[in-house]
Amino acid sequence: MIDLLKHELAKTIRIYNSKGWSPATSTNYSFKLAPEDKDIHISKSGIDKANFTSEDFMEVDENGNPINFSIHLKPSAETGIHCQIYKLFPSTTCILHSHSVYPVLWSLEHKELVFEGFEIQKGFEGVMSHQEKVVIPVVENSQDMAFFENWMKENGEKINFHCFVIKGHGTYAWGKNFFEAKRHLETLDYLCELKWKSNKA
Amino acid sequence: MIDLLKHELAKTIRIYNSKGWSPATSTNYSFKLAPEDKDIHISKSGIDKANFTSEDFMEVDENGNPINFSIHLKPSAETGIHCQIYKLFPSTTCILHSHSVYPVLWSLEHKELVFEGFEIQKGFEGVMSHQEKVVIPVVENSQDMAFFENWMKENGEKINFHCFVIKGHGTYAWGKNFFEAKRHLETLDYLCELKWKSNKA
Amino acid sequence: MIDLLKHELAKTIRIYNSKGWSPATSTNYSFKLAPEDKDIHISKSGIDKANFTSEDFMEVDENGNPINFSIHLKPSAETGIHCQIYKLFPSTTCILHSHSVYPVLWSLEHKELVFEGFEIQKGFEGVMSHQEKVVIPVVENSQDMAFFENWMKENGEKINFHCFVIKGHGTYAWGKNFFEAKRHLETLDYLCELKWKSNKA
Amino acid sequence: MIDLLKHELAKTIRIYNSKGWSPATSTNYSFKLAPEDKDIHISKSGIDKANFTSEDFMEVDENGNPINFSIHLKPSAETGIHCQIYKLFPSTTCILHSHSVYPVLWSLEHKELVFEGFEIQKGFEGVMSHQEKVVIPVVENSQDMAFFENWMKENGEKINFHCFVIKGHGTYAWGKNFFEAKRHLETLDYLCELKWKSNKA
Repeated sequence: MIDLLKHELAKTIRIYNSKGWSPATSTNYSFKLAPEDKDIHISKSGIDKANFTSEDFMEVDENGNPINFSIHLKPSAETGIHCQIYKLFPSTTCILHSHSVYPVLWSLEHKELVFEGFEIQKGFEGVMSHQEKVVIPVVENSQDMAFFENWMKENGEKINFHCFVIKGHGTYAWGKNFFEAKRHLETLDYLCELKWKSNKA
Repeated sequence: MIDLLKHELAKTIRIYNSKGWSPATSTNYSFKLAPEDKDIHISKSGIDKANFTSEDFMEVDENGNPINFSIHLKPSAETGIHCQIYKLFPSTTCILHSHSVYPVLWSLEHKELVFEGFEIQKGFEGVMSHQEKVVIPVVENSQDMAFFENWMKENGEKINFHCFVIKGHGTYAWGKNFFEAKRHLETLDYLCELKWKSNKA
Repeated sequence: MIDLLKHELAKTIRIYNSKGWSPATSTNYSFKLAPEDKDIHISKSGIDKANFTSEDFMEVDENGNPINFSIHLKPSAETGIHCQIYKLFPSTTCILHSHSVYPVLWSLEHKELVFEGFEIQKGFEGVMSHQEKVVIPVVENSQDMAFFENWMKENGEKINFHCFVIKGHGTYAWGKNFFEAKRHLETLDYLCELKWKSNKA
Repeated sequence: MIDLLKHELAKTIRIYNSKGWSPATSTNYSFKLAPEDKDIHISKSGIDKANFTSEDFMEVDENGNPINFSIHLKPSAETGIHCQIYKLFPSTTCILHSHSVYPVLWSLEHKELVFEGFEIQKGFEGVMSHQEKVVIPVVENSQDMAFFENWMKENGEKINFHCFVIKGHGTYAWGKNFFEAKRHLETLDYLCELKWKSNKA
């Protein structure tokens, strides 16, 4: 099962790259085999996402320390964000990070992204109608992973739709499985494209 | 023949997904083997359209009730719209639903979409010249399928080009076969892109 | 050689379709085996360009009349335009027609498309520098093929870059072989995208 | 190893073509097997980038003169730019040239492209934070290769991020290997898209 999951995830990572969501080596991805697991499978640092394969995951513990450490293997520089998401949202087993441009464009101008009246909002788990108001938080960018960990700890109650956006950087989206994480990421991207073109073009 | 049709339709569904017309599990599709048939083959609920295959159709009757019911199988939540289209436009054997962004963008601002002077209008069955005026109705969105069924019943004479758009949601297009339904959907999408960029960009 | 050419041309037709340049059955394509040949191989009418194959060409004579006529075979409705191009520009052996949106967008507002200062202008045969001025004519749309034939006859001296655009419709581009026709079509499309985004976005 | 490199580079060239970065025969690419090598492998002139293969490289010396000269083989018309980059930046072993539209659009209006506050800036070798200021020079276009060689010689200290843009023409990006050159090219393209849409749309 782990082989199939790695295969499916790697395929989606390559497709996202072909859409322009992860130029060159940027972005990162992780999964756990079960919510209660400590071990996290996360994308290695520095892999070109156009060629990402099943072999390009490595294992880290719940604090992001490599298991079976090798000097040749480095987990993604943003591993700390993944670890914190798994801690704060314990049903999570998959996290996807994207640099797709529309969420980034919105993040440059807004502290939060607000959507109302779009059918596709129902792509977020728990949203039952296009009439509900969906608010996605935007956090400042930082090179310090502890900054994001603290922000999440302090703002957990604002993160209600399984995703957030880092200003001028990109989107984190997650779910109780790969399938749901993918739906959350694609839903946010589509909403941002629609609203950006609607307001701006 | 049904196997070939399912195969061709599934291929097109995956291609539309790669164009960004159906993020994650959104959108739905159906066909009948003949116009006089009661049975409808419709996409199962909750299937990621990036991976949609021939196996992801199920059968419902003319009222949308599953045939050979199984608790594991649910037809698309919008099955009622499909059933009503088959009833009101009896030569129809294929219905496609898309979330492609340009029709949705237009739907946010207009009660109907008007096209005149574009060669590609001739992609709608019965249109003979770019000089004819093509008017595509826009309907409010709703979570209540009966709302759409009533709207169609009451506005059938306004639906002259084998498609309509739901506000903030997406496009329904149909035809006497898959080939024609596809042409109607792609024609509307292209016209909306052209006119949106022309008026707005 | 004819099989290879049909194969390559069909592949490019499918690629152009995937770019959105030929929604559903729209657009048409032709070639001759040698400039002095009378016979023209042209795309059949009504073929979906997503699935266009080597088999989807048929033969017509220099006036567009089907050779080996069958009631099941109809050449493209715009065959007359192809015939006229072959007559007026006798070194031509390949003609491509596209509905890509940027030339169409420009055609809605301009009687001719003027480019100056872009490196890629050198993609037009005979242009040696980005500093030359390239002028592409725009013609009104019509359902009457004779209208285009007359326009070309009367305006041949304005058609200096192996292509023209029909208002609200699309581009015709040609060359002494498929390779050159492709270069002319893609060069115009790129220039129109660049200039549209530059002036408008 | 040279076969694998040619294969990988050719694959990326075809992918860039499919993204619209190199219409028809435009753009050019080169590599060396080691920084100290004199021989340069460069794309032949006039190859359609949709069909570029491993066979479409040829060897030139450090001054751009063909090795094993054949009248049928011509290196890219811009070979002089490649030679000069290898001379001025001696750790370089791979150079990529692109006509992707966003850098070209910026080049029409600016003497240099300035980026600040975007995470992806870290895709440029040596940039450690999104807060650093990245300045990419823009040079006038010319048909005279000596013009570019002189410009580079005189402005080497302004070329700090392994790339520059030629006005109305395209991007040159390079690196100590193919992998790094690709990262630099894609990073600049993404930044230009983001900033163009942000400022303009």
